[in-house]
Amino acid sequence: MIIKTKSKEEIIDITSKVNSLIKVEKGICNIFVKHTTASLIINENYDPNICKDFLKLLDEIIPQGKWLHDKIDGNGAAHLKSSILGCSVNIPIVESKLFLGKWQALMLVELDGPRERVVVVTIK
Amino acid sequence: MIIKTKSKEEIIDITSKVNSLIKVEKGICNIFVKHTTASLIINENYDPNICKDFLKLLDEIIPQGKWLHDKIDGNGAAHLKSSILGCSVNIPIVESKLFLGKWQALMLVELDGPRERVVVVTIK
Amino acid sequence: MIIKTKSKEEIIDITSKVNSLIKVEKGICNIFVKHTTASLIINENYDPNICKDFLKLLDEIIPQGKWLHDKIDGNGAAHLKSSILGCSVNIPIVESKLFLGKWQALMLVELDGPRERVVVVTIK
Repeated sequence: MIIKTKSKEEIIDITSKVNSLIKVEKGICNIFVKHTTASLIINENYDPNICKDFLKLLDEIIPQGKWLHDKIDGNGAAHLKSSILGCSVNIPIVESKLFLGKWQALMLVELDGPRERVVVVTIK
Repeated sequence: MIIKTKSKEEIIDITSKVNSLIKVEKGICNIFVKHTTASLIINENYDPNICKDFLKLLDEIIPQGKWLHDKIDGNGAAHLKSSILGCSVNIPIVESKLFLGKWQALMLVELDGPRERVVVVTIK
Repeated sequence: MIIKTKSKEEIIDITSKVNSLIKVEKGICNIFVKHTTASLIINENYDPNICKDFLKLLDEIIPQGKWLHDKIDGNGAAHLKSSILGCSVNIPIVESKLFLGKWQALMLVELDGPRERVVVVTIK
């Protein structure tokens, strides 16, 4: 699955796109982002402020512009944020859908966009 | 599986409860919390100070009361902590038990309790 | 799989070692570290500065020497770093290899070495 991001930093809900790929009744769904400056998280997407708060928090913990890697590529903070958040998530499948809680959404975290991001969905 | 938490913030060892649900000899166990203000971690539970230190660390990194979401719900920091820690963990099964190291325990992290928390255990 | 680490803190690329254990064409690979002061991350290993930056970041967020657990064992910060980073990762397998992106490497994070670390690889 390809997700086109539009901003330098952005959080995109991919729950329904992943659900549309599920053809089995029950199982486990692995979602994997093939990048070192993007991540996956699960949290609320009903109040959009949570995603704004989250990008702000990441900037406070991991500030831009002070890393050795910045001399080569300028995106050191994005690599560090992605290392902490991870790029792989597993969610149970029940009734052919991700078995998420009422407030949970699966989201791609773009940390160095805009880019085309490859998301691999594997079902077992 | 339902876990009733008793405090605003609390870390509860659920290793033996998950072990009691395992009926296969070998495999992978996915443990998934269906909430946006709770998480799962694996670490030591022998010295209870590690869990106290961990809740203190989270409060230092992600302070209460300064987030946009707080205007709606007052629990912005809990959502952010949960987004960083994650709600899904996979552990190998060997001899019908979680194949944990000597010092490892699987723990539910309550970040906005007390509540009833739903933990989904899936075995493959 | 046993990985011998050589320093107090160190990041070791284990991608090729895990690849050498994969005998199936397709699936999911779970990699699990059986320790409470070590972790796994996926990120770039081409510029070695990213790993240096990452250990520095962890020290800034989670400083040494101020934790209750330090009175017992002196390695409180290592436990906390490991709790945040996690000890379990899942990666899709395609063509009998970890299906990583061009810049992604699977790495063991030693936080309280040098030690012998047990890494469990399970394929489904």
